[in-house]
Amino acid sequence: VNSQRREFDLIEWIRQRTPPSQGVELGIGDDTALFRQLDPEAGCLVTVDMLIEGVHFSFPSATPRQVGRKALGVNLSDIAAMAGQPTAAVVSLALPRGRGEELVEGLYDGLGDLAKQFDVAIVGGDTNSWNGPLVISVTVLGETVGKGAVTRRGARPGDWIFVTGELGGSLAGGHLDFIPRVEEALLLHEKFDLHAMIDVSDGLAADLNHIAEESHVGAILDEARIPISAAACKMQDDRSELQHALGDGEDFELLFTVSPADGRRLAASSPLGISVSHIGDIVEMQGLQLRSTDGSLHPLPMTGWEHTL
Amino acid sequence: VNSQRREFDLIEWIRQRTPPSQGVELGIGDDTALFRQLDPEAGCLVTVDMLIEGVHFSFPSATPRQVGRKALGVNLSDIAAMAGQPTAAVVSLALPRGRGEELVEGLYDGLGDLAKQFDVAIVGGDTNSWNGPLVISVTVLGETVGKGAVTRRGARPGDWIFVTGELGGSLAGGHLDFIPRVEEALLLHEKFDLHAMIDVSDGLAADLNHIAEESHVGAILDEARIPISAAACKMQDDRSELQHALGDGEDFELLFTVSPADGRRLAASSPLGISVSHIGDIVEMQGLQLRSTDGSLHPLPMTGWEHTL
Repeated sequence: VNSQRREFDLIEWIRQRTPPSQGVELGIGDDTALFRQLDPEAGCLVTVDMLIEGVHFSFPSATPRQVGRKALGVNLSDIAAMAGQPTAAVVSLALPRGRGEELVEGLYDGLGDLAKQFDVAIVGGDTNSWNGPLVISVTVLGETVGKGAVTRRGARPGDWIFVTGELGGSLAGGHLDFIPRVEEALLLHEKFDLHAMIDVSDGLAADLNHIAEESHVGAILDEARIPISAAACKMQDDRSELQHALGDGEDFELLFTVSPADGRRLAASSPLGISVSHIGDIVEMQGLQLRSTDGSLHPLPMTGWEHTL
Repeated sequence: VNSQRREFDLIEWIRQRTPPSQGVELGIGDDTALFRQLDPEAGCLVTVDMLIEGVHFSFPSATPRQVGRKALGVNLSDIAAMAGQPTAAVVSLALPRGRGEELVEGLYDGLGDLAKQFDVAIVGGDTNSWNGPLVISVTVLGETVGKGAVTRRGARPGDWIFVTGELGGSLAGGHLDFIPRVEEALLLHEKFDLHAMIDVSDGLAADLNHIAEESHVGAILDEARIPISAAACKMQDDRSELQHALGDGEDFELLFTVSPADGRRLAASSPLGISVSHIGDIVEMQGLQLRSTDGSLHPLPMTGWEHTL
């Protein structure tokens, strides 16, 4: 009974942290949440990401608040990659027994930070305790806006390739503190005809490869145009700054292609509060190549984030 | 590169197991899934549940297929509790390294069994490996139908309390092999005015208490009318059959209240292929009571499933 009381107090605490939002008819506290789309005619977007202590983050090099923030942020970045509007999230947790109460407050603080910033309602969850490390899985729902979802499939030969912000060295901290490019994606989608888009999570080369494969095209990247982050320049290992910019994962910037006409218009304006760089072009011949500063072309090695079973 | 290849083969394998469904414009393989509601004017339902090896199930007493089935089934039961129509699901996994490939096939077999049976599209997921036990989190989306969602909040004094099926002893196997009452809930919702509903996951007494608290009413259960399962009768421990029926969790039956007029109509008909029992009544005075066979009233002890932090 006492332990039940504590579980119910936690649900009550989470309820209070997740105030009523527009469109949410039932939040935490029933069998399911109930909400309405902002636009009934819009398509529904859904994405899920799981973060595991000791695999994707560790304490104390990350704080619980940063982990909560990232768990929501990676999903918001996925919604941004479709040029969608995020609306709601649900959170499932495996909490280490003994550390649960302390962790859950920090996690929900971090979840709340980004939820508030992007007007996302946390509408439900499932909280468990066990004798293992922290596992957090966040599902984010969203909806399409305007011209619909931007997929990985629409790149065409001749398209200009753009990326927002700067790349590489996310392990130095950016992988925890990035701002998902939700607003930038919506603005680009409104003003330009985005042919294909993805967020840079596996690494520039690997993610460009996803676009190329799904669109049945190839791509040439201009070495000199790739925006390298200060963090990549400070990495002290045997890989070059360029290798970091090409291969490091978790930049969570937007990588997208547009027609040359839209590309010229975008390059001539500064529509976003952050940099947008024209880094290469889509070509008919499949495969990825890197154009060196001397103009020579080289196959682009796949050095992205590795997933293993 | 080799490990990447294997990850991509797995995604391809999962893609093939999750065939295109009506309304799904993008399934597995982009940044998010994209689908359309069956009814654009309907409310969106969403629920999540996480199952953890060693906490909610163990191998080999459960098979991977049973675990996959249950992970989807508990969420379908939550959608059923709202009298909703489930539509789509996403799955996040932490797979034990070394056992991953073997587990993932069984899990997706089980997920697929119920997905097919209830016409739910598995539209996305996140698959991770680690040196820990299996953790599976499933999020199910659905939509309201007809008169809208049935919540825990609408029970009124005088209502008759009903439960589907039989209760208790789910640990003997029912907690893995139950059929979520999606179809029964939709049929009841169509033919009767359901005031409040919940699925029996924490146990009859605890779940009835959720309805009572959220509806600001009390309830009296008739001991003689509670349908006790054969599994509860076979449990060999120091608790009575009635205690099992009242306290065991994970029956995943529907517990609901209707007006006396609807109650009489329901009791006189057999609209479902399974039993439906009138087990008590909603009363004004808060708290739960049990009416013994001699007519005397006793406070109902809360013996439900315990959650701890």
